[in-house]
Amino acid sequence: MVDYSPAMMTDMYEYTMLDAALKDGTANRKCVFEIFTRHLPEGRRYGVVAGTGRILDALERFHLDDDDLRFLSDRKIVSAETIAWLERFHFSGSIKGYREGEMFFPNSPVLQVEGTFGECTLLETLLLSILNYDCAVASAASRMVTAAKDRPCMDMGGRRTNEWSAVAASRAAVVGGFQGTANLLAAQLYGLKAIGTAAHCFTLVHDSERDAFISQINALGKNTTLLVDTYNIEEAVKTAVEVAGPELGGVRIDSGDLAALAQRVRNQLDALGATNTKITVTNDLDEYALAALQTAPVDSYGVGTRLVTGSGAPTCAM
Amino acid sequence: MVDYSPAMMTDMYEYTMLDAALKDGTANRKCVFEIFTRHLPEGRRYGVVAGTGRILDALERFHLDDDDLRFLSDRKIVSAETIAWLERFHFSGSIKGYREGEMFFPNSPVLQVEGTFGECTLLETLLLSILNYDCAVASAASRMVTAAKDRPCMDMGGRRTNEWSAVAASRAAVVGGFQGTANLLAAQLYGLKAIGTAAHCFTLVHDSERDAFISQINALGKNTTLLVDTYNIEEAVKTAVEVAGPELGGVRIDSGDLAALAQRVRNQLDALGATNTKITVTNDLDEYALAALQTAPVDSYGVGTRLVTGSGAPTCAM
Repeated sequence: MVDYSPAMMTDMYEYTMLDAALKDGTANRKCVFEIFTRHLPEGRRYGVVAGTGRILDALERFHLDDDDLRFLSDRKIVSAETIAWLERFHFSGSIKGYREGEMFFPNSPVLQVEGTFGECTLLETLLLSILNYDCAVASAASRMVTAAKDRPCMDMGGRRTNEWSAVAASRAAVVGGFQGTANLLAAQLYGLKAIGTAAHCFTLVHDSERDAFISQINALGKNTTLLVDTYNIEEAVKTAVEVAGPELGGVRIDSGDLAALAQRVRNQLDALGATNTKITVTNDLDEYALAALQTAPVDSYGVGTRLVTGSGAPTCAM
Repeated sequence: MVDYSPAMMTDMYEYTMLDAALKDGTANRKCVFEIFTRHLPEGRRYGVVAGTGRILDALERFHLDDDDLRFLSDRKIVSAETIAWLERFHFSGSIKGYREGEMFFPNSPVLQVEGTFGECTLLETLLLSILNYDCAVASAASRMVTAAKDRPCMDMGGRRTNEWSAVAASRAAVVGGFQGTANLLAAQLYGLKAIGTAAHCFTLVHDSERDAFISQINALGKNTTLLVDTYNIEEAVKTAVEVAGPELGGVRIDSGDLAALAQRVRNQLDALGATNTKITVTNDLDEYALAALQTAPVDSYGVGTRLVTGSGAPTCAM
């Protein structure tokens, strides 16, 4: 539980401008604020809109509580008259925009906010924060999904970005075409498919890899995905099929030359009769690595760092 | 107000591993988890630690409420026995680490978590999320502060990153040597200096630049900083000093060739007798731009995008 108001997630100058504009009367002038980018990142031909749903959630909670008003007053950021105006604040304007998942291009407004100068000003920073990050992730996700062709992509990037960004990134990844996420809070808040089985530390805490695999199958069933690259991959695949039988759901490879290893593991699984066992690969994948893996016998991808940091473009310059 | 638990800001596999390890007994084995980076970003010789204070805050709130437990149970992520264990969860281990603001280098653990496998596993993703982002921003901030020499740097990047990242970035920027932030929630939560006066939209909503300047000075006093590049900079500086007198606190330039413009504006201000009026520059500054501005007559910097996205290294590979 944390106490916060999206109305405070803003640049101070939005409030100082409001204060001055209320004093001189311009706060009531009708305005249109448009959010757009002047240019796409180098080498990109489109962006993908995401974040609008989060904006709507944030606007529902957009109000200042007594602590916030006291802070603005104590720090002399706004006058007593503006505090009184803020106590009654209600956005009376309208917001129009692209749907989430649509493409966007330079100089076309992704979002248009119409209202008085005073009320539009207060929303500006929050809307930009949400759109700049969520669109960056959705745009990266979309390119990755294209490179992955029909193979599902899963978000595993949570640990490589701020803990709240991770939640937003999961949502934006799904908007961009990803099929699930490792992030539990995102799955809970947004009803997304959650995925994940075990990491290297789980193998390491057991006396042997075999013990770890037996334990995981006892807990999660034979349809689970076993991580096979903690020690020797060939040994691990052999052990995995011995323990789970050919009904083993999947194996995950998280290091090395993924294309070569996937082929070797596929051959080995097939030879062991585990012809339906899937292969998931992870480890610093980006859109280029996914494109390079198109001919490898891979069934799904787990993508981390490069997804949640926008694949080289962590913000959209909006 | 938002309802959340940092215990849910995690990868699902932390819980599935816990579940299997509780069943087979390895959850009680003593472990040491170490967080470190294997390599610094290209061209960097050090990183700066930040985020530890946020980790301590998060750990205080680290528990699962009924909704969270129901989610884990309904989705069959863990068994009923594990739900019972989670209801009683209390971290009994110890955490040691570098102080915030200290430098870090590859392969040296920034944080060491000692405890049982079960309890350490649950903290892993959250700790990595916080450290990877906060250290990335503090490291970028530190390089910028070095490049800026004695001139204060201010964080203005909130709109270019996720709204919660913005709050964390402000804090990490100050850990890295920045002197203040435009972000109000960060100022409120962490007691930071908040800065900010007006944007171009404030000038645009008025009938003339003069009207905008008069309004801002009426609201904020002569010690404010006027934004002088909405139309013609030379005209704006002339108007600014006419309106505020030579006691004008500062002017901000947010576009163009900042080194050349700063020199021209300094000459003009001095000729008008405004010898104490400060010059702030902003507009996509990074560590290289700051280094290039060392001989320009600039008094302070507002830094945005490149700060909150880690100046080319948005995560620390921890």
